[in-house]
Amino acid sequence: MVWNTNLRWRLPVTCLLLQVALVVLFGVFVRYDSDADPHWIDSKMQQNSTSDLENEFYYRYPSFQDVHVMIFVGFGFLMTFLQRYGYSSVGFNFLLAAFGIQWALLMQGWFHSYHQGYIHVGVENLINADFCVGSVCVAFGAVLGKVSPVQLLIMTLFQVTLFSVNEYILLSLLEVKDAGGSMTIHTFGAYFGLTVTWILYRPSLHQSKERQSAVYHSDLFAMIGTLFLWMYWPSFNSAVSNHGDAQHRAAINTYCSLAACVLTSVALSSALHKKGKLDMVHIQNATLAGGVAVGTAAEMMLMPYGSLIVGFICGIVSTLGFVYLTPFLEARLRIQDTCGIHNLHGIPGIIGGIVGAVTASCASSDVYGVKGLAIAFGFDGFKTNWNASMQGKFQAAGIFVSLAMALVGGIIVGIILKLPFWGQPADENCFEDSVYWEMPEEPKSTVLHPEDSTLKPSEP
Amino acid sequence: MVWNTNLRWRLPVTCLLLQVALVVLFGVFVRYDSDADPHWIDSKMQQNSTSDLENEFYYRYPSFQDVHVMIFVGFGFLMTFLQRYGYSSVGFNFLLAAFGIQWALLMQGWFHSYHQGYIHVGVENLINADFCVGSVCVAFGAVLGKVSPVQLLIMTLFQVTLFSVNEYILLSLLEVKDAGGSMTIHTFGAYFGLTVTWILYRPSLHQSKERQSAVYHSDLFAMIGTLFLWMYWPSFNSAVSNHGDAQHRAAINTYCSLAACVLTSVALSSALHKKGKLDMVHIQNATLAGGVAVGTAAEMMLMPYGSLIVGFICGIVSTLGFVYLTPFLEARLRIQDTCGIHNLHGIPGIIGGIVGAVTASCASSDVYGVKGLAIAFGFDGFKTNWNASMQGKFQAAGIFVSLAMALVGGIIVGIILKLPFWGQPADENCFEDSVYWEMPEEPKSTVLHPEDSTLKPSEP
Amino acid sequence: MVWNTNLRWRLPVTCLLLQVALVVLFGVFVRYDSDADPHWIDSKMQQNSTSDLENEFYYRYPSFQDVHVMIFVGFGFLMTFLQRYGYSSVGFNFLLAAFGIQWALLMQGWFHSYHQGYIHVGVENLINADFCVGSVCVAFGAVLGKVSPVQLLIMTLFQVTLFSVNEYILLSLLEVKDAGGSMTIHTFGAYFGLTVTWILYRPSLHQSKERQSAVYHSDLFAMIGTLFLWMYWPSFNSAVSNHGDAQHRAAINTYCSLAACVLTSVALSSALHKKGKLDMVHIQNATLAGGVAVGTAAEMMLMPYGSLIVGFICGIVSTLGFVYLTPFLEARLRIQDTCGIHNLHGIPGIIGGIVGAVTASCASSDVYGVKGLAIAFGFDGFKTNWNASMQGKFQAAGIFVSLAMALVGGIIVGIILKLPFWGQPADENCFEDSVYWEMPEEPKSTVLHPEDSTLKPSEP
Repeated sequence: MVWNTNLRWRLPVTCLLLQVALVVLFGVFVRYDSDADPHWIDSKMQQNSTSDLENEFYYRYPSFQDVHVMIFVGFGFLMTFLQRYGYSSVGFNFLLAAFGIQWALLMQGWFHSYHQGYIHVGVENLINADFCVGSVCVAFGAVLGKVSPVQLLIMTLFQVTLFSVNEYILLSLLEVKDAGGSMTIHTFGAYFGLTVTWILYRPSLHQSKERQSAVYHSDLFAMIGTLFLWMYWPSFNSAVSNHGDAQHRAAINTYCSLAACVLTSVALSSALHKKGKLDMVHIQNATLAGGVAVGTAAEMMLMPYGSLIVGFICGIVSTLGFVYLTPFLEARLRIQDTCGIHNLHGIPGIIGGIVGAVTASCASSDVYGVKGLAIAFGFDGFKTNWNASMQGKFQAAGIFVSLAMALVGGIIVGIILKLPFWGQPADENCFEDSVYWEMPEEPKSTVLHPEDSTLKPSEP
Repeated sequence: MVWNTNLRWRLPVTCLLLQVALVVLFGVFVRYDSDADPHWIDSKMQQNSTSDLENEFYYRYPSFQDVHVMIFVGFGFLMTFLQRYGYSSVGFNFLLAAFGIQWALLMQGWFHSYHQGYIHVGVENLINADFCVGSVCVAFGAVLGKVSPVQLLIMTLFQVTLFSVNEYILLSLLEVKDAGGSMTIHTFGAYFGLTVTWILYRPSLHQSKERQSAVYHSDLFAMIGTLFLWMYWPSFNSAVSNHGDAQHRAAINTYCSLAACVLTSVALSSALHKKGKLDMVHIQNATLAGGVAVGTAAEMMLMPYGSLIVGFICGIVSTLGFVYLTPFLEARLRIQDTCGIHNLHGIPGIIGGIVGAVTASCASSDVYGVKGLAIAFGFDGFKTNWNASMQGKFQAAGIFVSLAMALVGGIIVGIILKLPFWGQPADENCFEDSVYWEMPEEPKSTVLHPEDSTLKPSEP
Repeated sequence: MVWNTNLRWRLPVTCLLLQVALVVLFGVFVRYDSDADPHWIDSKMQQNSTSDLENEFYYRYPSFQDVHVMIFVGFGFLMTFLQRYGYSSVGFNFLLAAFGIQWALLMQGWFHSYHQGYIHVGVENLINADFCVGSVCVAFGAVLGKVSPVQLLIMTLFQVTLFSVNEYILLSLLEVKDAGGSMTIHTFGAYFGLTVTWILYRPSLHQSKERQSAVYHSDLFAMIGTLFLWMYWPSFNSAVSNHGDAQHRAAINTYCSLAACVLTSVALSSALHKKGKLDMVHIQNATLAGGVAVGTAAEMMLMPYGSLIVGFICGIVSTLGFVYLTPFLEARLRIQDTCGIHNLHGIPGIIGGIVGAVTASCASSDVYGVKGLAIAFGFDGFKTNWNASMQGKFQAAGIFVSLAMALVGGIIVGIILKLPFWGQPADENCFEDSVYWEMPEEPKSTVLHPEDSTLKPSEP
């Protein structure tokens, strides 16, 4: 099946329409929050605060920048491992994230920061918008190489919307804690993406198989993504936690979990190869599973050894997933998961939700202190009658809600994306930049990329 | 015309002389400012401050590091897109920036931090030195591939000097606000660089044409530069704003403008290609124009939708510039702008100056609050009689002063650099690392870089 | 000599055993420190502190993240310069650092943070663990390409242990100041690594000579490492300094020293080449020597011009070392130093120790103020009788202790690593990823890596 991949009018019109709509909606709804407004000087004096540092900016901005790097460089370069899809990996990730953060500022704003007719945005909104887009980047990993940028924009539009609804249900209705987003970001993002790619199943994808692997330097580019994700994950999981000890604890737990995860990923990668050799795919991905799986519990009293155990398990499970589960999903369930997000975000996300539920139900004032417990779980105000075990049950419910939203949403969005006029590439031209990008002239010899000569152009 | 490009004595002597001079001048003039001096403990106790956090270090250091990354990795890697000029792009940028920040500490110090015979340096001086060097990096983009490292050091010496004079006129005499440097950094840097490259016009540059394009992996290296510039631009525009809400607001405005700019850059890039394909040059450059153009107004009440509009326009204008203006400038005006800085820094810089002037003239105590307005524009002390419209006019004047300084300075420096003994490469050896770098041995076959065999060595 | 490099059981077992041991030890010993514990709210109220910002997290976390990037991306990518060893450089560095930080949290914790049976970890412990691993990354540079990942884990186990003992002797017994670790990290790490590689001398290493150089793109990957190390070094040297002016001063001094070092490195690199061409090895490494050499004195009153002088000297010494000393060490002393760590960490580390000793012995209350001096050197409590000259002598003693520990430790660890069952590669297969990594299929032609065809596989 050969479709028209010339996006000359579809992509520009989509981008411009979306951006015009965003300008109008921002004009109607978005204002600065009080910490970013020039009247802040007045409220500071009213509160008798003597220090400019009390501005939320100084609590969150360094974490925000780390998260920002994860979304744009981390996810973008992680996906450059494909030999001929580097432009698209980095470029389309850039495009969808730039659109997604604007739309997320609105969607999340309406749910969480809407006061007197306006959305008030501050640095915490910027972080949350990046988080929301993180879940789209996760889903992008499943469909990588098989969709057009127009499809990605459409998917982002819907996924950000669904994410915000799901997040509202979890955080505001179920009052679930999910600082690092094991459920809201990773579980939701992964199963949404897997459902979409299941709907978009391509029976002849083997025709692009030779481009679905790495070359030497593309693997090194991917390691840039891996390392920036790995290093900044403590900021990710602590970015929106409560001030003080909660942010501090979330960073420590994530640091520990990730470190343990590296050792078990390496161990399994070597053990599962007949000559004991390491596989770059595992090093690039499974080492990160520990960060996903402490997302929910990072700010809780998981304890450093608890974090190590979580990382230990996830390194093993994730590597096993790459070796056994991904081929199974493709062969039997017709789920073509390009980046193996099921192993990096799906299973670890669910593990993270479970760890969070268990840790929450074990919370007690012995461990947290009376005041500490009230602050950590918001057991005050109208939640005074709650207790830890109830919190644990709601946490567990959050996993199922996220899964349900992902599956239902993924089916609907997948069907929309299956429509034949979005400019998707033919099966034999998947994982190939030249479909959507003006390519530099290669040296005359085609030695470097012999597959090029077999590329069947699908443009009219 | 073949000149001697053997720099064996010229480059070492230039570097060593400059560095010795810097050591002497630092010895005579530079001391720590009070927040970096051990006596700080005394002044802290006098001010009854109980917290070490009131040290300026904690307000500015995270932003400083982000700006530092932009200058060295951002600009350095952005210019690695050329297939055979990666060493020079990163390496010469490294060299000129390392020299430039030292000289800028002195020049800016004499103008702004000179007390009782000494320049007092603190973290804000480090940021401003990086800013100043940013304008040199911009100008480097215009002459990239066509000059020797000795020429770059000479250019840096003069440009930093002129930058500091221009900055003094704008910030201290005209009392212009220019937090992100749309005028002082981008407009000045771009038109200075364009004037220099105009003076250095090379009629036979087409002989190096085949090396003036990218190869696959060089474009991915360049995306590292693009993304670090894009992600950290909110820090750039907010780094030296007033504490509190001004820094906060500058970050939000820049975040919004950059996001919008990505969508319109992609839209235009696709619309202007006959098959609707995207061009890496636009994605690498035009997406950043939004950051340039909110530089002046970022800390003002531009409003989030105002920022989106600025980004929207700049993505379009900048991409159009790459497609139509750059070839025109080269063919008709003999301005050979290697990186297209006119589209990324020139026009967006002027737009930024205009946006700043308009936003400033619309300022009122309704929007800012009485105290807020006084703080934002310094309408106190001897400026009590000023008003917003006056501020707007001075802002506009700043654009013209910057342009005039850039043109006059660029002509003088261009003529100096045209002297035949700086070791510049011959026209047929431009954009080629091997002129100034010891190269690794290539594999015996020359398939990878067929142009190598045609390289005419110009060394004696 | 051909050994079995199939690590199928050795690497997994080593990783899993170490990680299980770490989990158990963390369970027994590691708890959150008071700033990361939910009871922090209580202690905050007791201390009448009104601001959450007084949590240590906000003083140190941005610096921690910068240091984290240096260890994983900085050191990892710096070593990717080898044409066929990029996977191993980044991947093994990742593995050893992930193991090392966990072990360092324990070892350093027992020495410095052990209270009532528990190690209390907070953000400062995370930084110190990264520092400790930094010294292992330094030593890795000497043996790069010649050891198996199992050997690296064994080396890390011992080196972290020895590092912690040495650090305890210097910081707690000798009461030496060493904020940026010129002695504890760089001198110790470099001479430890050099001693290990001396013991592991390979007489037939010339058989791998053609892989011991760079290719074009591998040098650009290495520049990513260089630049992130260079840019974040001010954070490295200031990360654990006293709050306030000491952190501030350490950052300024390091910034100055590094800038000067770039110019003299470039000068010498060009002067020492017969055609005046620059050598990427010098730009990648010698430019960093200035950061190493201000490590000890960065927080002292070295003065900005003093920092410039230190950087000036180190750029020269380090580049000379690469040109003359490294070949001499290899030919005459049988020390095969792959990355030239002697020039980047060894000599500059010793210079740093000396600069620190001299600067400390010049300290006086004229320069520091009475309170400032007491705070800077801890001249209070039981050290009231100390003076600056005494401090200087102890500083000097610290250099010799570090050297002695490095040499004795290096010999012992080297002998252990020489045992023939760790899976080390044969001499003709050094510097080759394919020994330990599943490699992507190369294009059919071997033009790109002609050496591949000569690779003699040593697997059974």
